[in-house]
Amino acid sequence: MTYKLIAFDGDDTLWHNEPLFRDAHIRLREMLSHYGDADTVNDRLYQAELANLSIYGYGITGFTLSMIETAIELSDKKISAAEIHELAEIGKSMLRAPTRLIEGAEDVLRHYAAHPDRKVVLITKGDLIAQQLKIERSGLESLFAGVEIVSEKDPLTYRNIFGRYGVEPSEAVMIGNSLKSDILPVLACGGSAIHIPYEITWVHEMVDQTEIDNDHFVTVESIAEVPESIEKLEEDLPAYGTVGSMENV
Amino acid sequence: MTYKLIAFDGDDTLWHNEPLFRDAHIRLREMLSHYGDADTVNDRLYQAELANLSIYGYGITGFTLSMIETAIELSDKKISAAEIHELAEIGKSMLRAPTRLIEGAEDVLRHYAAHPDRKVVLITKGDLIAQQLKIERSGLESLFAGVEIVSEKDPLTYRNIFGRYGVEPSEAVMIGNSLKSDILPVLACGGSAIHIPYEITWVHEMVDQTEIDNDHFVTVESIAEVPESIEKLEEDLPAYGTVGSMENV
Repeated sequence: MTYKLIAFDGDDTLWHNEPLFRDAHIRLREMLSHYGDADTVNDRLYQAELANLSIYGYGITGFTLSMIETAIELSDKKISAAEIHELAEIGKSMLRAPTRLIEGAEDVLRHYAAHPDRKVVLITKGDLIAQQLKIERSGLESLFAGVEIVSEKDPLTYRNIFGRYGVEPSEAVMIGNSLKSDILPVLACGGSAIHIPYEITWVHEMVDQTEIDNDHFVTVESIAEVPESIEKLEEDLPAYGTVGSMENV
Repeated sequence: MTYKLIAFDGDDTLWHNEPLFRDAHIRLREMLSHYGDADTVNDRLYQAELANLSIYGYGITGFTLSMIETAIELSDKKISAAEIHELAEIGKSMLRAPTRLIEGAEDVLRHYAAHPDRKVVLITKGDLIAQQLKIERSGLESLFAGVEIVSEKDPLTYRNIFGRYGVEPSEAVMIGNSLKSDILPVLACGGSAIHIPYEITWVHEMVDQTEIDNDHFVTVESIAEVPESIEKLEEDLPAYGTVGSMENV
């Protein structure tokens, strides 16, 4: 059997994203250096992000508001309007930043987009409009059979998406940089997954990889290795699909 | 023929939304009264919202950032961190506000949810997470066959959504308070539409209603009139559907 659906994460899998956040962190730490050391600023920002996640979601507008909140609270309301304005402008420049593709990503997408019996889908998490802008700027939009922007990546999210494309989880493979969002929930619902670690991982997305013991999971160093990994994973799939897709025999 | 898909807008159609924004506007005008009169504050806020729409999208996080930007710029950076903090807290309380249903909305949804040959779908615009929270809090989620959260409501958006549910535009009717977002684009792609004006309309959503001349369009005063309007609109539909759905004859 071959995978009928090949799904890719966007941020830090197909294009660079964390460096934008890292640069914003650096500027915030400089701005707040009178009020707290680097660890304190990092910790307060992370606590604000966590506390706000359920109402702001994942994305740059929410991150910007969390930076502003951190600056106001850590400075005990002494931060100036000019400095808050600068934080808001940092958020805007993040939203307007060009989409920098990860090397090799376009080749891999083109390879699978040409296969008539494979559907290539983007599954990405974050602000609706910000993700759409990134996809448009990436120049890759035409290579996807579908684009799914979700607020949370859990097993039910993946199961529903796979269902909408008419495939069983066992017929799908997800490729991404986040064990927490791209790998574990897909394995949990019976799919396959390929992990490509990125140079930076947001602390919220960190999990202990040593716990993963699954035949349908592999880690590679770069996206260029994905086609070879998919071939290897497919060797371990049942020859004629699962009970759920016997009509394909 | 009867409509196979009955689509509802959420904000100010099924639940109250604009009053939250109106209250935030009132507080912003009070806060900035030293720096500009009510019209000036309104105008500057609207200009900021318009300029930021392409990166922030429609939603409360973007609105909060536009309020903060307006306060900083109109005060020539004299506004205090404490006041900016208050604006951020207003945004949070808007995001946390309970979903107040519009009278009669639940009855109409229950009426159609019980029809096996009608699909009831929510089509709403805004922040992904904020809209999901509102839907969860509404208690109406189980009455929808599907929920579609989109970044923009244009004819192509509607055409794609109808397609995903396997219906032609001519087999769908959309019900909403915004002529610009809920009515005109649906009529433009060949669907039917029912307009229920809300007590407040955001200036960005205002259009001149006198221009609409379409047999598949009606305006009603309250959502309770929707079932009767749908019956009347259905009398004007071709008896056996359009060419595009002849398989249903």
